[in-house]
Amino acid sequence: MSKPSTAITPTRSENYAEWYQQVVRAADMAETSPVRGCMVIKPWGYAIWENMQSILDGMFKETGHQNAYFPLFIPLSFLEKEAEHVEGFAKECAVVTHHRLEATPDGRLVPAGELEEPLVVRPTSETIIGASFAKWIQSYRDLPLKINQWANVVRWEMRTRLFLRTAEFLWQEGHTAHATSEEAVEETMQMLDVYATFAEDSMAMPVIRGEKTEGERFPGAVHTYSIEAMMQDRKALQSGTSHFLGQNFSRAAQIQFLDEQGQQELAWTTSWGVSTRLVGGLIMTHADDDGLVLPPKLAPIHVVIIPIVHKADDPDAIMRYCNSIAAELSATRFDDRPIRVEVDDRDIRGGDKAWQWIKRGVPIRLEVGPRDMADDAVFMARRDKGLKEKSGVPRQQFIETITDLLQEIQDSIYARALEFRQAHTRTIDSKEEFYEFFTPEHREENKPVPAHGGFALTHFNGSVELEDQIAKDLAVTVRCIPTEMESEPGTCPFTGQPSPQRVVWAKSY
Amino acid sequence: MSKPSTAITPTRSENYAEWYQQVVRAADMAETSPVRGCMVIKPWGYAIWENMQSILDGMFKETGHQNAYFPLFIPLSFLEKEAEHVEGFAKECAVVTHHRLEATPDGRLVPAGELEEPLVVRPTSETIIGASFAKWIQSYRDLPLKINQWANVVRWEMRTRLFLRTAEFLWQEGHTAHATSEEAVEETMQMLDVYATFAEDSMAMPVIRGEKTEGERFPGAVHTYSIEAMMQDRKALQSGTSHFLGQNFSRAAQIQFLDEQGQQELAWTTSWGVSTRLVGGLIMTHADDDGLVLPPKLAPIHVVIIPIVHKADDPDAIMRYCNSIAAELSATRFDDRPIRVEVDDRDIRGGDKAWQWIKRGVPIRLEVGPRDMADDAVFMARRDKGLKEKSGVPRQQFIETITDLLQEIQDSIYARALEFRQAHTRTIDSKEEFYEFFTPEHREENKPVPAHGGFALTHFNGSVELEDQIAKDLAVTVRCIPTEMESEPGTCPFTGQPSPQRVVWAKSY
Repeated sequence: MSKPSTAITPTRSENYAEWYQQVVRAADMAETSPVRGCMVIKPWGYAIWENMQSILDGMFKETGHQNAYFPLFIPLSFLEKEAEHVEGFAKECAVVTHHRLEATPDGRLVPAGELEEPLVVRPTSETIIGASFAKWIQSYRDLPLKINQWANVVRWEMRTRLFLRTAEFLWQEGHTAHATSEEAVEETMQMLDVYATFAEDSMAMPVIRGEKTEGERFPGAVHTYSIEAMMQDRKALQSGTSHFLGQNFSRAAQIQFLDEQGQQELAWTTSWGVSTRLVGGLIMTHADDDGLVLPPKLAPIHVVIIPIVHKADDPDAIMRYCNSIAAELSATRFDDRPIRVEVDDRDIRGGDKAWQWIKRGVPIRLEVGPRDMADDAVFMARRDKGLKEKSGVPRQQFIETITDLLQEIQDSIYARALEFRQAHTRTIDSKEEFYEFFTPEHREENKPVPAHGGFALTHFNGSVELEDQIAKDLAVTVRCIPTEMESEPGTCPFTGQPSPQRVVWAKSY
Repeated sequence: MSKPSTAITPTRSENYAEWYQQVVRAADMAETSPVRGCMVIKPWGYAIWENMQSILDGMFKETGHQNAYFPLFIPLSFLEKEAEHVEGFAKECAVVTHHRLEATPDGRLVPAGELEEPLVVRPTSETIIGASFAKWIQSYRDLPLKINQWANVVRWEMRTRLFLRTAEFLWQEGHTAHATSEEAVEETMQMLDVYATFAEDSMAMPVIRGEKTEGERFPGAVHTYSIEAMMQDRKALQSGTSHFLGQNFSRAAQIQFLDEQGQQELAWTTSWGVSTRLVGGLIMTHADDDGLVLPPKLAPIHVVIIPIVHKADDPDAIMRYCNSIAAELSATRFDDRPIRVEVDDRDIRGGDKAWQWIKRGVPIRLEVGPRDMADDAVFMARRDKGLKEKSGVPRQQFIETITDLLQEIQDSIYARALEFRQAHTRTIDSKEEFYEFFTPEHREENKPVPAHGGFALTHFNGSVELEDQIAKDLAVTVRCIPTEMESEPGTCPFTGQPSPQRVVWAKSY
């Protein structure tokens, strides 16, 4: 067997699921832990999450939200207050039943100090935050109340996958209360917009905004909205959700206020969240067969400089030259932050270094040897281009154009992802074509990656039962009813009945 | 009974413990939750914690640490690996025993899906992080490994107090591994220094750095160091700890590396942490009988501007004047961040507004009415000064000197706290004087706050048993053996034996 020509084995087309795991490993982003379903987020993965947090946190604050922190544990009785909600989460709760450990006579430790009421490790915090809101809100003057929490949550998933689905994950959850239904709906849509803007501008990941159908709604919500992105296996990744909760949770928690007329009313609430799952989305949108490709706006390092000293007469001079470039770059800003530069002077082979940074997805790599220094130039490679497209650039020109260059990379990977989605989205008007579009021809060919499929746009007026049937037939579901797509009324190809607009179908994570 | 002349009732001298609770409540920082021992951190309290995090995180990164994230849950078998460690935490662990909920025939929810091995909610992460370190470290080239984690932890405390002692709290925990004992000790001391610098420079809270005696050591550590601050009731608050763990945890987790000679060696590890307890320390160092007093470097808002519009001919003009001042201030930086300004235009009484900001500890309050505007001036009050010390200042002068003014407030509250500590620290050379110093004369007078007591500096060469006896007699313990105090050898007043240096005794939280 010949040596593979890519840094990641297998490639996307050979085995997509395994390729994903290998990219995470090669970029040193995360790994499984000894605790079933829980991951360890390694420094490179965590630094990307920190950059996501920082940008999102700024957007939340700009839209008038304040951070706070609520208990990790939720008493069972709280969870029970909203019937659909508890139904939705009961099957995947970590339950704390004891508050100390005791040694048995034979020296083993066993749980002791049984709690009167078991506590659930929060899978989401509507009920516990609702209890605080009920205390904090007395009158219309206390509204709107707009809170966000950065936290860990636990949902006991049986089949887990790094970043995409883990028993414990990190997220933010926004929780707001309003005096009117209209205001709460406006908040719900505003936060969907914030998520879409973040996904497209910062992650360079195109998304479709839309409403979920009944079957995919958040347990206890009146309307659930999401942003949906197409991954490179053409499956959809739900990347953020925003819920209009009506008065369901305020009724359960008694979040009441006196309105301007002195009438007691129930508040209208929302909740919305994104999680470390976004890191998985980032990988599956941009990474290639050589590893991660990072959008500059989220890259922990924008530029890595590799000094090529082994053939130099004066290695120190090259180091000084590299450090001076690093200093000049660091004094420049991109996306309102200083440009982050690393001079990699480790004592290992230059080729190994280069491959390591390629696999980690750093946007720009400079290799600087004696000839470059003599020319007052740098040798540059862009991670978003082919590996062979490297070129010498005058130092001054490189430094002056670095901001534009990073923005160009950001734009180019967005454009590529959008083009991919468009190429694999089909408007479909017959049931036959729909079934044909999603029929896995690769089953015959024994290929794990579908050669067709993607997003199908069809009219739809069907029932939950019909959706279930299609899911059973094809493993395809309605990802969302788009809120911003040009849409004419038409005929549902499954029922022959009139339909107000098209919906997006896809296989999904 | 006459109306109290302070914003907080009771005052510090009337009932210190209750005063503390009332300051937390009046500043709207936190409250108890329906979950026993867990607190809700409200936006004002959380914003202070976020500022602490931001500064500390920068200091950790500057000293070469990277953030990462490890599982919330620790398998029992991991905790058991280090005998002293599990002994130290077994009595206060939240234990997860089930992974779902099931409805009983009568409709109640009960834990179901019993785990094969119970999981402990992390009280600290040495053991679970050690498991990762053992995988990540192969050779001396992988060292030092310097990791930090921002996380929530749970220690099932029976007697809790907002910020100071809660069952769940937020913290950071640094974990590092090194090739030599010397390097690990150096790291331990460096992080103690980072904490001391943060406490003194950012929190304006003077601290004494020192080593803990055996009885107060972290379970499993070789040496534990801490920073200790004096609160206004003259008790000590342990505000941060840094542990040299020797090879205890690397032996338990098998953190091994091949050294340069190709020998297999155990790594030397450290851990260090500070928590939301610091917020409690901040309150008890600076707050007064009118509420919180914030050091400018940690204040969520530096300057609040209260427009006095009720007696104005042209309220809009005053608002414009206030907003222009706010814009000018926001364009100025203090401590490397933009100055944070709030114009409080809520439709409530000006006096109520002023008191609210006083209780929340905002460093500078401006009140701006028609006369001030006509004079192109502002009316200013500093939170660190007496409530009556207010004065008119020309607008331009105020804006030009704002950075100096904030630094002056920062310095002045530090100086005040240091002076307080010095006034209540006594060098003691006899057992009688020691017992007299800590004898609560207030017991007779029925005063809850001691009229004397504080930090006592004595020579000491006693045993753990002697320390226990003194703790039993006086509720006083050795807070630390200072590492940086000028110290001559002398005689232990308790044993009459030679002693190498003085130690710090105090009552403590």
